[in-house]
Amino acid sequence: MSAWDRTTSREQVLTRIRKLAEIGKISDTGVSRLAMTPLDRQAVELARQWMKEAGMSVRLDAAGNLIGRLESPVAPDAPVLMLGSHLDTQPYAGRFDGIIGVLGAIEAVHAFVSEGLVPQRPIEVVAFSDEEGCRFNKGIFGSRAMVGRLEEGELERVDGDGITRSEALSIFGGDSARLDEAKYAKGSIAAYLELHIEQGPVLESLDAACGLVTGISGPLWLTVELHGFAGHAGSVPMSMRRDALAGAARIIAGLQDLVRAEAGTPAVGTAGTLQLFPGSRNIIPERVQFTIDLRDMDMERRNRLEAKLRELIDEVAADNGLTYSIREDTNSPPRYCDPELMDVIRLEANGMGLQLPELMSGPFHDALALSYACPYAMIFVRSKDGISHNPQEYSSADDIAEGVELLYRTMRSLALSIQGERSGGKWESTTA
Amino acid sequence: MSAWDRTTSREQVLTRIRKLAEIGKISDTGVSRLAMTPLDRQAVELARQWMKEAGMSVRLDAAGNLIGRLESPVAPDAPVLMLGSHLDTQPYAGRFDGIIGVLGAIEAVHAFVSEGLVPQRPIEVVAFSDEEGCRFNKGIFGSRAMVGRLEEGELERVDGDGITRSEALSIFGGDSARLDEAKYAKGSIAAYLELHIEQGPVLESLDAACGLVTGISGPLWLTVELHGFAGHAGSVPMSMRRDALAGAARIIAGLQDLVRAEAGTPAVGTAGTLQLFPGSRNIIPERVQFTIDLRDMDMERRNRLEAKLRELIDEVAADNGLTYSIREDTNSPPRYCDPELMDVIRLEANGMGLQLPELMSGPFHDALALSYACPYAMIFVRSKDGISHNPQEYSSADDIAEGVELLYRTMRSLALSIQGERSGGKWESTTA
Repeated sequence: MSAWDRTTSREQVLTRIRKLAEIGKISDTGVSRLAMTPLDRQAVELARQWMKEAGMSVRLDAAGNLIGRLESPVAPDAPVLMLGSHLDTQPYAGRFDGIIGVLGAIEAVHAFVSEGLVPQRPIEVVAFSDEEGCRFNKGIFGSRAMVGRLEEGELERVDGDGITRSEALSIFGGDSARLDEAKYAKGSIAAYLELHIEQGPVLESLDAACGLVTGISGPLWLTVELHGFAGHAGSVPMSMRRDALAGAARIIAGLQDLVRAEAGTPAVGTAGTLQLFPGSRNIIPERVQFTIDLRDMDMERRNRLEAKLRELIDEVAADNGLTYSIREDTNSPPRYCDPELMDVIRLEANGMGLQLPELMSGPFHDALALSYACPYAMIFVRSKDGISHNPQEYSSADDIAEGVELLYRTMRSLALSIQGERSGGKWESTTA
Repeated sequence: MSAWDRTTSREQVLTRIRKLAEIGKISDTGVSRLAMTPLDRQAVELARQWMKEAGMSVRLDAAGNLIGRLESPVAPDAPVLMLGSHLDTQPYAGRFDGIIGVLGAIEAVHAFVSEGLVPQRPIEVVAFSDEEGCRFNKGIFGSRAMVGRLEEGELERVDGDGITRSEALSIFGGDSARLDEAKYAKGSIAAYLELHIEQGPVLESLDAACGLVTGISGPLWLTVELHGFAGHAGSVPMSMRRDALAGAARIIAGLQDLVRAEAGTPAVGTAGTLQLFPGSRNIIPERVQFTIDLRDMDMERRNRLEAKLRELIDEVAADNGLTYSIREDTNSPPRYCDPELMDVIRLEANGMGLQLPELMSGPFHDALALSYACPYAMIFVRSKDGISHNPQEYSSADDIAEGVELLYRTMRSLALSIQGERSGGKWESTTA
């Protein structure tokens, strides 16, 4: 076999990004390729072909995950080193989200094989099914199926056309009756690596092509409802008002103050939706409902922020004569990346002369599901203007190439290491 | 003729309120009687009959105003003393808004005639057409027609069924081609009095049955639009955010602070509507549009508040990396009640032993239109919980009776006074 050629490899990835972007293309740079649709299946078939070309055997599991496998002649039954991401997109999306993780992993295996290397454990590349979750309103489906974290009633969820996930899965080539077969046995995955675009502005602000993810911050999702009393905007004196929107405004501004006070930490707080009633310009708002998204890598700090927020809501309500309710919709803890895997990535980045700032991931990824089954790590590639889930999403060819090379080097190091389980020590490479 | 009997008079008004409430009745206490509908016409016919019973001659003018007239044998051509309000309602309304002003005025004339008194000028009672404005989205139609303040294109406005105001007016019994005939000549109205429910909570809080209106505050209506930048709620650090909702929240909270700082004045400020985009719980809001309603009886203070608000918007936008636009939708000056008429009302209330707190009117009334043609005054009757434009709207029989008696006494004083124009002096009653 020929040695790995960096330039050819880079062109390969870019060409494939362009080819995938044709499937479900919208506008000049956009893609709309919803999970488990014929377009998604078309993308999977392309990836299947590329996986084969890289030297892998390929299967589509019952959950719709496309899995390419490079066997290890020396340890055929050892826990696998897994790399992956997804090919499905949001309805109004770009060309990179998920895609570079799958294509980068395929290219990493291709490079590994091209170099004539022999893995000390099997390597698997997965294009997970339905990461985005926009069709059935619940995502990271394939990866959750793989680690046994599906929930009651998921298969009965319907899309906008009344098609159940079970039906969509079976049309796609999966089989909801055999989902158990998609589950990996405990301990059978040695580690999981994912390359993904950042979907945020941090790396750009630091002028860095790539970043090392410290973990995926779980959000606390609250829905706050305030009840006041409607009245004519002209006839109720300020002192007698029970204005639910004025109250909501104080809480939302106060949330910003609380989180801004933690400057320098990854704590973030957002009110993303707000509805009010009755919503007339000359009537004092009687009811306001808004949502809060609070995230941090430090659960203790997040809990402290939550407690302060709840105090604030109580104070504002009392001051404005409002009653309130707070509903907790989601409360996910942060999932930390594996320190040993992070060390390997740092080392490889160092070898490339690559600056590698560390940052948390706000969004979910398939890695979140995998984190419940094995140690995991993630590499982020810079996003222009932090934009994602939009045709304007953009990561440069150079940045993607750096990310793919870092993924490859990390994979190579781990695939060649003599110990693969977390046995207390570092992953040690057999190469210098 | 028999003398005026307070008990009979009170029963008469209450009975008529109940009768009118049957026309367009919804739920137990609600009324839905949109302007210039067959139901509205039915109400007008009842009022026409009651006006006749009170001794007036009655006509429906080209603008749909029902006008009852009590001639003055001593000064048949003198400027008229006018009393009135409206019979149309909002779609989900109560039994009192507008109604008590028309019925109270009819009863006042009835009492005057019953007492065998002779007016020193003609008295007219008007049920103005389309005060509410909800059908064609522009109100105080009849009263504006009377004072020559209709605007371009008003007759072409259509309701939800595609019927133009011109058509509706003609079905109702008016005539859009002869609207000019509805206009009163300059100086032909000596004064205008209106009895109305407060539609706010001030009198209730002061434990007063009635109040004396100081004026109708004109609103300043602004629409503020903030533009930031959307991003994932988990992946954009606080310091890099351009969160339009956080900015809007600071402005709305700041507006409350600014107006609250003028405690003890009638200044009020309200944000009544707010829309945001994209409106997803894990996306930072990119655009927010909200409305501001700012009112005061003191234009200088209102202008000062507006200037401070605009400064605040500019500061908040700069602090949050937002651009903004402010559109002025309406800018109405306050219209003050006539000091001499207010003196007459104070004197009469004093004679009744009636506490009469003074307050501004936030909402519009037909009196607003009349204020451009003659001196005017208004008497408010306490509203339970300040509720209006709702079937829960309620004013007690006792309070209404007090209001009607005060209206009658004021009318009597003015109708018997030897000077009716504003000639520099007080209105002087010929009675003790």
